[in-house]
Amino acid sequence: MSKPLRIALAGLGTVGGGVVRLIETNAALIERRAGRAIEIVAISARDRSKDRGVDLSPYRWEDDMTAFATDPGIDVVVELVGGSDGPALTLARRALAQGKALVTANKAMIAHHGIELATAAEAAGVALKFEAAVAGGVPVIKGLREGAAANAILRVYGILNGTCNYILSTMEDTGADFAAVLAEAQAKGYAEADPSFDIDGVDAAHKLAILASVAFGTTIDFAPVEITGIRRVLAADIAQADALGYYIRLIGMAETEQAADGTTRLFQRVHPHLVPRDHPLAHVDGATNAVVAEGNFSGRLLFQGAGAGDGPTASAVVADLIDIARGDAKGPGAAPFSIPVAALETLAPADSGPRMGRAYLRFTVADRPGVLAEITAAMRDAGVSIESLIQKGRAGAGGTDTVLVAMVTHEGPESAIAKALRLLHGSPSLTEPPLVMHILSD
Amino acid sequence: MSKPLRIALAGLGTVGGGVVRLIETNAALIERRAGRAIEIVAISARDRSKDRGVDLSPYRWEDDMTAFATDPGIDVVVELVGGSDGPALTLARRALAQGKALVTANKAMIAHHGIELATAAEAAGVALKFEAAVAGGVPVIKGLREGAAANAILRVYGILNGTCNYILSTMEDTGADFAAVLAEAQAKGYAEADPSFDIDGVDAAHKLAILASVAFGTTIDFAPVEITGIRRVLAADIAQADALGYYIRLIGMAETEQAADGTTRLFQRVHPHLVPRDHPLAHVDGATNAVVAEGNFSGRLLFQGAGAGDGPTASAVVADLIDIARGDAKGPGAAPFSIPVAALETLAPADSGPRMGRAYLRFTVADRPGVLAEITAAMRDAGVSIESLIQKGRAGAGGTDTVLVAMVTHEGPESAIAKALRLLHGSPSLTEPPLVMHILSD
Repeated sequence: MSKPLRIALAGLGTVGGGVVRLIETNAALIERRAGRAIEIVAISARDRSKDRGVDLSPYRWEDDMTAFATDPGIDVVVELVGGSDGPALTLARRALAQGKALVTANKAMIAHHGIELATAAEAAGVALKFEAAVAGGVPVIKGLREGAAANAILRVYGILNGTCNYILSTMEDTGADFAAVLAEAQAKGYAEADPSFDIDGVDAAHKLAILASVAFGTTIDFAPVEITGIRRVLAADIAQADALGYYIRLIGMAETEQAADGTTRLFQRVHPHLVPRDHPLAHVDGATNAVVAEGNFSGRLLFQGAGAGDGPTASAVVADLIDIARGDAKGPGAAPFSIPVAALETLAPADSGPRMGRAYLRFTVADRPGVLAEITAAMRDAGVSIESLIQKGRAGAGGTDTVLVAMVTHEGPESAIAKALRLLHGSPSLTEPPLVMHILSD
Repeated sequence: MSKPLRIALAGLGTVGGGVVRLIETNAALIERRAGRAIEIVAISARDRSKDRGVDLSPYRWEDDMTAFATDPGIDVVVELVGGSDGPALTLARRALAQGKALVTANKAMIAHHGIELATAAEAAGVALKFEAAVAGGVPVIKGLREGAAANAILRVYGILNGTCNYILSTMEDTGADFAAVLAEAQAKGYAEADPSFDIDGVDAAHKLAILASVAFGTTIDFAPVEITGIRRVLAADIAQADALGYYIRLIGMAETEQAADGTTRLFQRVHPHLVPRDHPLAHVDGATNAVVAEGNFSGRLLFQGAGAGDGPTASAVVADLIDIARGDAKGPGAAPFSIPVAALETLAPADSGPRMGRAYLRFTVADRPGVLAEITAAMRDAGVSIESLIQKGRAGAGGTDTVLVAMVTHEGPESAIAKALRLLHGSPSLTEPPLVMHILSD
């Protein structure tokens, strides 16, 4: 047996505790598979006195986690502090600069600073690994970097946020409204006290930007990701989608496109979609995550599993550590984004306007004559072709005099829908802004 | 750029042609991802004159493929000849003995000789890779070897044969009988002229034995795999299962168990199962493959995609080549079965008798009084508890006077069902042997 891989853990929250438990529970098996032991030599977190439900006394405590970067007794720093900047980023920069390998579950940091950190890792000849940053325990970074490496990826998309999927699938099962299900999810610990990162789609967008980079060989470009969360999805939308043969899921999607000017551009969007009932993503329920990658030879590949939680996330963190222990993260295969940073392409963001597709539009309108004529005239004038339309029930939770008008469009450019919404903008007939959800195409 | 990885292709059937097309089509992308080009330097197949729909004139032809083993200009031999023994095995042995890396899509050869070949590969310090042998283009060997490496795997199971799944899901969609769907599948090229390897479950069993080894760190043990194919599944069984909330799928399943004597044993079975409609495998249609691995930290992971075909299989073959080109298949990570052969465990086969579960039983019986009493008495005497029972329609395709009796049991040991069938064995009431299908548990 070779000597152990010596790791230091920074951050002892849910995931940190899971990593400690996993390494303790599966120690013998990890040693068999990795060819050497993985040994926790030091730990650090903000508050030493906090009870974390796991005995940390066997491990050396370090008050200042940045000391890990210069400790010659440490091979790999495992960053589980979280946050795109601040202490996590300081630690990551210092560790890589000192030639330590870095394993992280920090999607925000990788989405914002992944290219800088990969550059540092490549310069130092050490590994930077982040399997746990996307889709929890599901080995989708490895699946794209290595499993699908022979393919040009045409499109990558999936269910990337377990909290949103839990809320949407619970709304579906119970008929309850968003606010009620969110409150219940918070009570059960499935949603944070401040849930905005999850339900507004930012967390999914971080993961999508990382996936896009690995799939397409492009630099990470978080800023242009179009993001819409699920706050405005009503129980009535879910019922309406169901009646039409669809489930509503928050989908992150990225693909490369040829723009009108001949350049290749990158499209990235997080948006609630109507998913046809015969699509594999339609049956992904609860806090599960799932990613589809479409390769030009492999066809459609699906990776699915628990998207969060201490056990699954720890499974991904330790898989990265085993890769490093095995020596797989050296040589030409070591580039964190599969292709060395210097060779990654930088693509301009694609415009959604020319994208062809079908969409679901829901208007909350005042219950009075002429409203339907006004909406349908706007559709006609913008060139939006309506496949089906339903006017139904009362939307107002407070018993206000409002009505829902939901429609599904025929295939057409997104710019036409945007135009129709511009025509209706400011109309006193609409009691709130319209909700647009795209229909996932095959 | 480093120098190219030089490969030789043995076998130019569907998959071999796909590998040539993929390497030509995606050459630039492969070079970016692998850090070096992958270059086909020689090819070989039985018949040089055959038109394969791909221009092979750029490649050196070798009449004797075993010459690849000793050619100093070749780094990797890609074996796509097929067959568990014969020329494929001879080539594999010679190539590894001469220190060439070997990539193969040959499930039969790996299931029967994988341990011998891995021993040779480890001795020579070269890679032996077989991602394409299981589930076509789906990177499930990598998913288990590396992605789930931190976990003790509790159970691995899945839909491993695309032909069977195509037949079962088409029977489901159309209500047609097995023979008619098989004939149609053969006409379309989805089933072989001699389909027995597929429909009798042997192909799935080969893949299962390989998966079990990678998942559990055990030596491959093909012989004890319990195998039942799908020939005897009737349209009436599918309709009955559907009415009960299940789809029928051919499932390969492996798990380790504690036997009564305290030893750990390996259970491996390929068998048509009733899959609950809310299970992800229930929605796997057509020629798709899907594998579920249950890890003690990751929870349930699902890998899904095209299980066969030239493109998907070539995608897996070339992913293995990219791993080798990147240098990932060296060092402690190189063991073909994740753990070096010398450290693999050899487990005795588990007995299915004590396994607890629910089952679907279908009897084809003569249409006369007393038959139902005879069957239910046998169930009672064997201790099988019946949850639901239905007697329905006529089974005989030839209009014979037979009736189907289908039942679902409560949870109980499989030995009780076996005892009931022994009690009924030879009964003149049964016009054919009973069909037992297990119900997939969560």
